[in-house]
Amino acid sequence: KGFTVYNKMYMPTYYKSFVDDYWSLVKDVTLWDVAGERQVEIKGNDAEKFVEYITPRDISECKIGQCMYVLLTEKDGGIVNDPVLLKLSQNHYWLSIADSDVLLWCKGIASSKHFEIKLNEPDVSPLSLQGPKAPDVMENIVGSWVRELKFFNFKEYKIQDIPVVIARSGWSGEKGYEIYLCDGKLGNELWEIIMKAGEEFNIAPAAPSQISRIECGMLSYGSDMSIKENPYDISLGRLVNLGKKADFLSRTALTEIKQQGNTRELVGVEILGEIFSDYVPDHLPVYIDEEIVGKTTSCVFSPQLNKTIGLALLNTKRNLKPKTIAVNINDKVAEAKICKLPFLRNK
Amino acid sequence: KGFTVYNKMYMPTYYKSFVDDYWSLVKDVTLWDVAGERQVEIKGNDAEKFVEYITPRDISECKIGQCMYVLLTEKDGGIVNDPVLLKLSQNHYWLSIADSDVLLWCKGIASSKHFEIKLNEPDVSPLSLQGPKAPDVMENIVGSWVRELKFFNFKEYKIQDIPVVIARSGWSGEKGYEIYLCDGKLGNELWEIIMKAGEEFNIAPAAPSQISRIECGMLSYGSDMSIKENPYDISLGRLVNLGKKADFLSRTALTEIKQQGNTRELVGVEILGEIFSDYVPDHLPVYIDEEIVGKTTSCVFSPQLNKTIGLALLNTKRNLKPKTIAVNINDKVAEAKICKLPFLRNK
Repeated sequence: KGFTVYNKMYMPTYYKSFVDDYWSLVKDVTLWDVAGERQVEIKGNDAEKFVEYITPRDISECKIGQCMYVLLTEKDGGIVNDPVLLKLSQNHYWLSIADSDVLLWCKGIASSKHFEIKLNEPDVSPLSLQGPKAPDVMENIVGSWVRELKFFNFKEYKIQDIPVVIARSGWSGEKGYEIYLCDGKLGNELWEIIMKAGEEFNIAPAAPSQISRIECGMLSYGSDMSIKENPYDISLGRLVNLGKKADFLSRTALTEIKQQGNTRELVGVEILGEIFSDYVPDHLPVYIDEEIVGKTTSCVFSPQLNKTIGLALLNTKRNLKPKTIAVNINDKVAEAKICKLPFLRNK
Repeated sequence: KGFTVYNKMYMPTYYKSFVDDYWSLVKDVTLWDVAGERQVEIKGNDAEKFVEYITPRDISECKIGQCMYVLLTEKDGGIVNDPVLLKLSQNHYWLSIADSDVLLWCKGIASSKHFEIKLNEPDVSPLSLQGPKAPDVMENIVGSWVRELKFFNFKEYKIQDIPVVIARSGWSGEKGYEIYLCDGKLGNELWEIIMKAGEEFNIAPAAPSQISRIECGMLSYGSDMSIKENPYDISLGRLVNLGKKADFLSRTALTEIKQQGNTRELVGVEILGEIFSDYVPDHLPVYIDEEIVGKTTSCVFSPQLNKTIGLALLNTKRNLKPKTIAVNINDKVAEAKICKLPFLRNK
């Protein structure tokens, strides 16, 4: 019933309501059409070298059939995107991207520096099946092996002659799978097969749940990070390996930033007092006394916690010891406190 | 009343109706909020060298205060965007872009090859004032000098303390100006000033008119061209200067393509028979006998010509002498003929 635009495609934002969809996700199982998460395909003799070049994470240990969450970073350390990397075979990768034009950026880099690769957006559209009963639904469709698939591993497969890649992954706190459809013409068919297999488990169509992903401290490109933030700013320094063997674009910048110490920090926040079960806009200023010390990046009402929770990007240079901050929502000041992430553990 | 998404911003598509807006444009004057046309700013010692590198057009003769229509091309000749280039001062340019993420592409190139430049999206949002009475409205606001401003020239100016750049340009067949607002906070104020100055000339808010731009053979990135087409494919070989002095990314590819001869051609088409005054989807296959020989890229009903006209990308390798072709609209076959562009002369 709601739509947004993601990588130039329409993408649903909710079906029944944000909260109804959330309960379907948390109690049963939901199917999301996330075709807007496009794939950037990198193939050719220098494919590994190229992927190493665009991310500060060491991907040399990534095995065929494995996914890795990576940050793509510009020369100055700014984050271009936070895709999931899939290694399909030697020197053949997909970047399953968030909302920004990674293909053009990659083309720019590959065109100026010599890399023997082909860059391409293949006809691959992901569906996401998320919820505690996702393994039951998948077993119905492809058999019991799918229960053994480890987190962030994937397998190429055919579902009734429909070519897919099945990954144990997903942008929610629940168990789940991402099913990458490799033939766009068969999308409706695949959707029907999964919905039918899920009937007995109360499957519901839904969209990526902001509630669940914030509860579990998962980030969203465009809200919680942008090209203006580097990995340390958003507390994802663990995805940077400054000493990795391969050459990468952001090494000099990120090494300097690391030496000088963090200037920002991404934290959890809980808004106290009156409950804001309504929509809370992103990017509200965060105050200590009258001074702005950062901004929220995304907030949401969590029905499980019965609290309004969110993420905030704080300026830590000032040594933010006080745990009580203030947020200005629709011209009303609300008290808030800084919390450890995640609010809820991933299942 | 209609919206689309352009460079990740909402952009209006029409106010009263496509046809009403068109008549306001052709008879009087219209004001368009085209803030979605973002600027990519290139500044620094190598700014000219960088702009030369990303376009096959020779920009060495571009003077300060001058606009140039350029195609940005990838290594293989594919078109990344078709912006208007503005030279603000020595080694300081804006690319006023169509819908694709040029900033990331430029960053990719600049990061890998050494260019001493800063790339940036400044807080600049264009308004477009188009129609035969546009000069009257502008004279009301800034004085008579604006009538003397030559086509594709611009001037930095202040309208009641609002910093703007005023260019004699626009994406319509009528006279017009583009007013680049250089302080986003003052947008409503600027809008009101112009609407007020236009009252006596029947000014109407509108959006870029597909009717007018197709009548005048102006192209739209995403419809009539994409990264899959090179400049010769879309009959814009005149924007390529293979012999230009400066180095550019697509030289080898475009030189080869030129030598081998065009494989495609962009032409005007007129759909015959029954009049399709409804919306005609883009990218309909074009047939000769039963064979597909290309596709339409955009079609529209022209109230002035009382015809459905459009643009089509044809495969010319087969030597397309017959001037009668067929187009399949909503499963009905319509006869069409190939026409010279433009349908109407620019004023």
